[in-house]
Amino acid sequence: MENLELKEKILNAIQEKNSSLINEIFVNTPAIDIAETLEDVEDVTKLLYIFKVVPSEFSAPFFTELTNKQQQLIIDAFGDKQLIELLDHSFADDVVDSMNEMPANMVNRILKVAPSDLRTDINRLLNYKEDTAGSVMTTEYIEMKKDISVSDAIDKIRKNGREAETIYTIFVRDNTRTLIGTVNLDDLIFAQNEQTLEEIMNRNYVYVNVDTDQEQVAEMFKRYDLNAMAVVNRENKLCGIITIDDVVDIIVEEATEDMALLNKTAPMEQKYLDTPLFTLVKKCVPWIIVLMVLEIFSSVILSGFQSEIAKFSVLSVFTPLIMDAGGNSGGQTTTIIVRSLALNEFNRGDVKKVFWKEFRLSVIIGLIVSVFAFAWLMFEMATGIVECHAEIGLIKIDNDWIVRLCVAGLVAITLFIVMIFSRLVGCSLPFIAKALKRDPAVMCGPLMTTIVDVIALLSYFLVWVLCFGPILGL
Amino acid sequence: MENLELKEKILNAIQEKNSSLINEIFVNTPAIDIAETLEDVEDVTKLLYIFKVVPSEFSAPFFTELTNKQQQLIIDAFGDKQLIELLDHSFADDVVDSMNEMPANMVNRILKVAPSDLRTDINRLLNYKEDTAGSVMTTEYIEMKKDISVSDAIDKIRKNGREAETIYTIFVRDNTRTLIGTVNLDDLIFAQNEQTLEEIMNRNYVYVNVDTDQEQVAEMFKRYDLNAMAVVNRENKLCGIITIDDVVDIIVEEATEDMALLNKTAPMEQKYLDTPLFTLVKKCVPWIIVLMVLEIFSSVILSGFQSEIAKFSVLSVFTPLIMDAGGNSGGQTTTIIVRSLALNEFNRGDVKKVFWKEFRLSVIIGLIVSVFAFAWLMFEMATGIVECHAEIGLIKIDNDWIVRLCVAGLVAITLFIVMIFSRLVGCSLPFIAKALKRDPAVMCGPLMTTIVDVIALLSYFLVWVLCFGPILGL
Repeated sequence: MENLELKEKILNAIQEKNSSLINEIFVNTPAIDIAETLEDVEDVTKLLYIFKVVPSEFSAPFFTELTNKQQQLIIDAFGDKQLIELLDHSFADDVVDSMNEMPANMVNRILKVAPSDLRTDINRLLNYKEDTAGSVMTTEYIEMKKDISVSDAIDKIRKNGREAETIYTIFVRDNTRTLIGTVNLDDLIFAQNEQTLEEIMNRNYVYVNVDTDQEQVAEMFKRYDLNAMAVVNRENKLCGIITIDDVVDIIVEEATEDMALLNKTAPMEQKYLDTPLFTLVKKCVPWIIVLMVLEIFSSVILSGFQSEIAKFSVLSVFTPLIMDAGGNSGGQTTTIIVRSLALNEFNRGDVKKVFWKEFRLSVIIGLIVSVFAFAWLMFEMATGIVECHAEIGLIKIDNDWIVRLCVAGLVAITLFIVMIFSRLVGCSLPFIAKALKRDPAVMCGPLMTTIVDVIALLSYFLVWVLCFGPILGL
Repeated sequence: MENLELKEKILNAIQEKNSSLINEIFVNTPAIDIAETLEDVEDVTKLLYIFKVVPSEFSAPFFTELTNKQQQLIIDAFGDKQLIELLDHSFADDVVDSMNEMPANMVNRILKVAPSDLRTDINRLLNYKEDTAGSVMTTEYIEMKKDISVSDAIDKIRKNGREAETIYTIFVRDNTRTLIGTVNLDDLIFAQNEQTLEEIMNRNYVYVNVDTDQEQVAEMFKRYDLNAMAVVNRENKLCGIITIDDVVDIIVEEATEDMALLNKTAPMEQKYLDTPLFTLVKKCVPWIIVLMVLEIFSSVILSGFQSEIAKFSVLSVFTPLIMDAGGNSGGQTTTIIVRSLALNEFNRGDVKKVFWKEFRLSVIIGLIVSVFAFAWLMFEMATGIVECHAEIGLIKIDNDWIVRLCVAGLVAITLFIVMIFSRLVGCSLPFIAKALKRDPAVMCGPLMTTIVDVIALLSYFLVWVLCFGPILGL
């Protein structure tokens, strides 16, 4: 990813004050590539030279992609006039993104110099709750009255469109400022000049409320293949729009979050290398401790059956196998169901269908896995990979084969039971979490493991005590 | 999600042959909502009535959203003329998506009636390897020569733009059909009529090759905030474009895939309820069996230390705790690193930084977790939740407290070792997989568990045999 040549070329050009070469680089290279190659340049005079010679059309997007530290250095070094010009070429939502990471005095300085309309927008965006449509929307959009003509609309866009984040969707309102439709730029291009917006607008548009969760927003973009969507306030008046490039970020964020939670770690808000060490400690340790505390249930069961293990220690050789198989199989179901819920695949009546499907599935998987395990364990014991003979423990049994058959049978029968219960637990938990309005991914990881461990150990020792122990006379 | 009212309204309108009501519904409701509410309607005469009365501007997107079965019923019932009209209003890539699920005779019929240019497009798209840029691109785009004027370009779009999947990005070529730039529709709108495309085009555009992996395509859309991107062939000639709505699907697909693999199940290609039972069996069983076979390493270790367990059975009570803690902590690291790799967060020199960070992190986490575990185990044993006294096993020790301190100390020291190794293993594996050009998510799940289990058990029993066993005289 690193482009040393590009970096050297830019730094040399700065050194030699070759402004035309710098401009040529900015015209031919995406801003993010330039920002990335310069990410460790913290000599503010070099950065300032770039802002001095490159027109703000190119330098504003470059500024947005710099690191927080670089942004702060530049804002510190800028005079008010330069800062105003930079802000003038940025969108309110990009500015807010940077401000969220800045110290308070920097935020105040920006708010002080920002043009009043930008300031209003920034303040409004800073006020919405995190992860709602309000917090991701942008306030720079094009809104027009329904009775305007197509040619007037195009003129208006040519005049004011540069301020908007997208001109590809135009929002149409009636005289009470209520949203009544949308017009795509292509429909405008294809329409007759004298038609009104009302005649050509889509009436089957969708919209969200400022409080709508961002995950639902992303869901609607996917479902309806949108480029931009209206956000309305409680009085159904348009107050912002969300564009598809923001939605791409939301989808990535939500998937990362679910993935982290299912794997028992708190989701990361920053890149790994940018996250401070103690933030990582805070994200990882609580889960490990909670899971260790929950392990008490397994410990109690194992502790209760200690005398059985002391009598016949080969029992302890296969407890990890039983517990892991249960955890893996329950985890498979949980992952599939959590993901299907996140992608909104289920309708109301589908829960019953899911359970019936899981039940049949678990019986089939249980049969296959048990038969395989029986054969595999017989192989392990016959070859001596796992020692299982009568001299171990307190009791002596003469016929090794009977001992082996009993151990393999015990594991096979337990696995069949565990496969069925682990899948049913693994698919119930996400639905229960959903019904309780909790995030399925948070609850499912730890609870699933704990419940399945308990079921696995209990089944194992009960099948032993009630069935195979007596057969071997233990 | 279900909308019974809408369904009833449509079915009634069909019953009463109320074509104007049906048209009104199609004008005011997104096609996907109508298709979903009718998803179990398989009476082809009802569906055909809709296609008869609704103009193809609305019925073509409706057709794309129907289930495969419904699509096949309709194609079967359609005459060639109707089928041609339907295909004429669809984009090649949407048609190919449906065709991938259709029986061969249906595919042949579509190819037979499709207009020749659509047929060429379909054949070309069907030929690209799965998950490459070629397989997701669309061939309906707008391409213009560099010396055309802005006003001519707008006229051309007005005349031919309806055929293209997007008119928001126009691709500019030189006289040899080589791509030299892109023009966004908004730049065209804001430009002067007499300027040429060459004057206003972006020269810092990015593009991909037909063979580029779709994950990398998605990465570039995110990085450069694109609406559409050019796909070129081996001779650098433009042969298709990818639009952002397809990218949203790719991102969702890739995230789902990584999530499934990390949780040890094969990724799903369909919705859960649409996936046949035996496909699910095939996706779940191999992983469980492979993991069970890999469990042989744990079994061998436990088997080797059976005599220790027989002598002092409380050892077996805490093996699951040690193994689970290692698995959880390694899993946390793996998830974070796999995700960071998928999001392309690391540059070449970063591997060393990651390891150094992980090492410091694991020492801190190890210290916290060990101290906590020591206190927690002392509590469990002191309260009798876990039985740990000298009467169990072969040997009698008079002082319960010494036994408890030794057991808690054993677990605490082992956990410290396990926390360090599990994180180092968990973060090495994804990088190794990447270096071997394998998908990190596939390799890491099973290998991580196996390696960490072995490390955990070996540390546990070695610390026992070398240190605490002798203290207790065992």
